[in-house]
Amino acid sequence: MIIINEGDGKGKTTAAIGQVIRAYGQGFKVKVIQFIKNNSSGEIEVLHKLGIAVEQYGSGFTSKGDLNKHKSMAMKALQAVEQAIDDNFDLIVCDEINYALNLIDEVEVLRLMERAKSKQIHLILTGRNPTQKMIELADIVTSMNKIKHAFDVGVKAQVGIEY
Amino acid sequence: MIIINEGDGKGKTTAAIGQVIRAYGQGFKVKVIQFIKNNSSGEIEVLHKLGIAVEQYGSGFTSKGDLNKHKSMAMKALQAVEQAIDDNFDLIVCDEINYALNLIDEVEVLRLMERAKSKQIHLILTGRNPTQKMIELADIVTSMNKIKHAFDVGVKAQVGIEY
Repeated sequence: MIIINEGDGKGKTTAAIGQVIRAYGQGFKVKVIQFIKNNSSGEIEVLHKLGIAVEQYGSGFTSKGDLNKHKSMAMKALQAVEQAIDDNFDLIVCDEINYALNLIDEVEVLRLMERAKSKQIHLILTGRNPTQKMIELADIVTSMNKIKHAFDVGVKAQVGIEY
Repeated sequence: MIIINEGDGKGKTTAAIGQVIRAYGQGFKVKVIQFIKNNSSGEIEVLHKLGIAVEQYGSGFTSKGDLNKHKSMAMKALQAVEQAIDDNFDLIVCDEINYALNLIDEVEVLRLMERAKSKQIHLILTGRNPTQKMIELADIVTSMNKIKHAFDVGVKAQVGIEY
């Protein structure tokens, strides 16, 4: 099952983490691979505590810093997904992969989706703006749409909620 | 922070569970109270294992069975939320509460939202079709919209994905 969580609203990554917890509870072998991100967030320690691998391949916002560094990190993340498919994980989260599509080739992502599908490995891809071809290849696509957000009235990102 | 996850798409409950894991990782005292539901799902055992309380007050689909029984269960769930607010939990998930609005009075839900807010307790309310007043009172509202779902092409609910 290929699942995409897209949209401008809150819940793309938390829904992936909730899915990881559910699948883990059913005995699945799960791995979380984070593109772009290099920040700590409350869930990471808990996943580690449960023995669930979380790998971060990011150097933060791609609008800042060295573009080649960002590209090289995104390539490493792709290779990590490839490896997790080789290693027969049951569920692999590719967190923020959609956001990395300015760093990596869409064809590479489509190829990984095809490979996972052929091996009946569940893949969750998160982030805004997946491509049309990715949506076509996916089985479940949800758009998390912002109806309202505290950010819009000046509330800052809060511990335990946003990270 | 009052958070509502609504919409016809996948991710309302999993995003709440992911949020629970994140908040728990930041040292929050969290509780999950499920309305309507009485089924086991992979995440429940994992939450228990982490020492996170999950309480179910449901007897399944409200379209089946005794309506008075459903109403009485929903009232018990509301009381459990009230108690969790009294007990100063930091984050309380009211899973499927929106779906229970045909069983309980909207005014009761609004009152709980106001009480949580005044005590700076985070509340997550999930389920389709919250009321306009609930949306007005909330800080973050996300609509999980179905772009596509495997159910639509006849795929049945899968272990580790839907439960």
